Amino acid sequence: MAVNEERVRRAQALMEREGMDVLLILTHDDYMFFFAEDRYQPRAIIPREGPPTVIAFRAEAESLRSALGVEVVRVFSSVGQQIHDVITVLRGIKPLRGPKLVVGVQMSWFELPVVLMSLFQRSNPNVSVVDSAPIMDELRLVKEPDELEKMRRSAECAAEGMRAALAAVRVGVTENEIAAEAEYAMRKAGATGTATPIFVNSGENSLCLHGTVGTRRIQEGDLVVVDLVPSWQGYLANLARTAVVGEPTQQQRALFEAYLAGQNAAIEAVRPGVRVSELDRVAQTEVARAGFGDDYVFGISHGIGLRFEETPAPTIHPKHSGFVLREGMTITVGHSVLAVPGIGGVRLEDTGRIGSSGWEPITEFPRELAIVG
Amino acid sequence: MAVNEERVRRAQALMEREGMDVLLILTHDDYMFFFAEDRYQPRAIIPREGPPTVIAFRAEAESLRSALGVEVVRVFSSVGQQIHDVITVLRGIKPLRGPKLVVGVQMSWFELPVVLMSLFQRSNPNVSVVDSAPIMDELRLVKEPDELEKMRRSAECAAEGMRAALAAVRVGVTENEIAAEAEYAMRKAGATGTATPIFVNSGENSLCLHGTVGTRRIQEGDLVVVDLVPSWQGYLANLARTAVVGEPTQQQRALFEAYLAGQNAAIEAVRPGVRVSELDRVAQTEVARAGFGDDYVFGISHGIGLRFEETPAPTIHPKHSGFVLREGMTITVGHSVLAVPGIGGVRLEDTGRIGSSGWEPITEFPRELAIVG
Repeated sequence: MAVNEERVRRAQALMEREGMDVLLILTHDDYMFFFAEDRYQPRAIIPREGPPTVIAFRAEAESLRSALGVEVVRVFSSVGQQIHDVITVLRGIKPLRGPKLVVGVQMSWFELPVVLMSLFQRSNPNVSVVDSAPIMDELRLVKEPDELEKMRRSAECAAEGMRAALAAVRVGVTENEIAAEAEYAMRKAGATGTATPIFVNSGENSLCLHGTVGTRRIQEGDLVVVDLVPSWQGYLANLARTAVVGEPTQQQRALFEAYLAGQNAAIEAVRPGVRVSELDRVAQTEVARAGFGDDYVFGISHGIGLRFEETPAPTIHPKHSGFVLREGMTITVGHSVLAVPGIGGVRLEDTGRIGSSGWEPITEFPRELAIVG
Repeated sequence: MAVNEERVRRAQALMEREGMDVLLILTHDDYMFFFAEDRYQPRAIIPREGPPTVIAFRAEAESLRSALGVEVVRVFSSVGQQIHDVITVLRGIKPLRGPKLVVGVQMSWFELPVVLMSLFQRSNPNVSVVDSAPIMDELRLVKEPDELEKMRRSAECAAEGMRAALAAVRVGVTENEIAAEAEYAMRKAGATGTATPIFVNSGENSLCLHGTVGTRRIQEGDLVVVDLVPSWQGYLANLARTAVVGEPTQQQRALFEAYLAGQNAAIEAVRPGVRVSELDRVAQTEVARAGFGDDYVFGISHGIGLRFEETPAPTIHPKHSGFVLREGMTITVGHSVLAVPGIGGVRLEDTGRIGSSGWEPITEFPRELAIVG
């Protein structure tokens, strides 16, 4: 736990290039990227020049100052006071160009709530708020060795969770009881939580695009989709697998084999210089060859790291379909369900690094239809 | 799982009163309130007249239609397509007054992300977006018997979690190992997740305003704050307790007793007709009497139900301080930490219903300093 000065320096160079005066950090992922610790309602300011400032509860200030070596502004307890303190710090910074301070904020993702942004903009009209994505993407796309190591630890937690989940699947247990075993195994392996709620979708629920976890009881013949995204010091790995309870039907097996062929084709296609849409193209070709082309759902791959979905994320931002993969990025391949009412839904998802010659797996778990119960 | 027609009817009557043409539901809590089920990226439309429409993944459409008895629009997989379908449905609705459709959206809370709102507004400029709070607050403030029953089930899960957590606290275990036991016990008791990440804050971390869970190892003499908000079919109960590892120091005991006296005073003050700020006033008086008045953090109470913080939530919305409590509402009393560097932080939080003659507890767990290890 210490401010990552190298990353702050790189951010400041990019801010200069983009004409941004301040990076205003309001989300966990960006906060962890710079400060290597997590905090309730993280609020930090990185100016174009000079050291960062963290806004924190007064009783936390002293320990933060000594641990991070940054300036700390003390607040009391309210969201309004945090924003007030943010604005006070911003008033002390001079714009590089023009009359208004240009403030970069993470706005392209699901992390920033409307209520916070509108509070900030109502209280502080004399700044120009821009999306920080051009800077943060460039900083975060290619993972450093210590980031990869944390993602590998997360992948180990995911594998522990998946083993526990598959061992728990049998007729009569609820989806939530399976989730309990997966979650417990991941915590015991060191994960401090999950980036998305654990998904255990069985039977008819396996048709869900993603899903939640419910109290449905497992029945003979069910397909069961388990999707895990544990966090290891903020870094994530995504692992999804499908099980069948008892002997699979021919249709279930065919559906699974179609998905696997699509995932394999996409994994084979991963390499620097390829557009992310190409992964969908080759996967869809395989799935169509198996007779399920109309059921293929676009969006087989997305970036992953400190956020569950990072750039490129074509199901959120259509223009990301044209994003060209680079060496050193981390992505998932799988993601979308292949669901056919009457048969069920199947899914596989893995996390890997884009190496110079292709896919380097981060998640490691047998990619076969798990026959359980 | 079925659309709650009575609630839809009440919403439509309020929409008429407020001059709102459409309620656009984009968050889990509002979705669960009307449809009694949860869904990944819930998207639904309740027009001023006529039946609701749910936007769902195509493979989920048939089962949703038969279960909920509502119209279902099928989408593929992307966020953009969901918003496109929302807009298509809106185009079929005529405004009651004026040229623009008035669309109510949940904007006062942390659930709605900026990215979704800006996508909607960019694609659909010819509507007037307003905060749905005046309608949703009136619908949700007073809990119905089935809502209270679900909150009681959540409270039972919280008590199971707290017992497991306190039993796990001993020198050498990590905060996260304690969280693992609490989480597992809550899942096994039927909770399908938690509304906020489990907090286990020990030693220096107990000074945090709220906190997270880390890998710090418990030491002799630590104060350990455990905060749990399990979900039972979407409904929440909040329970927080503080433990000390070994014999408490005189200062630790005094700090705990100050908090307890403040919480007791606030609980005693709860009744219909009282402003929420009055709870802080009486609590602060007690805490000050014990010599910790300067350390008191404003915001001892907030609403709770399908969302962790519902109206009134004075630490998010200062004007809520003047909110007058009503019979049948559910609130927490506790919430803020009482933290003194050098001593540590303590916290208690309970959930209750405002009965005609005062506080009716929903969470039930001994309110004493737990001496463990």
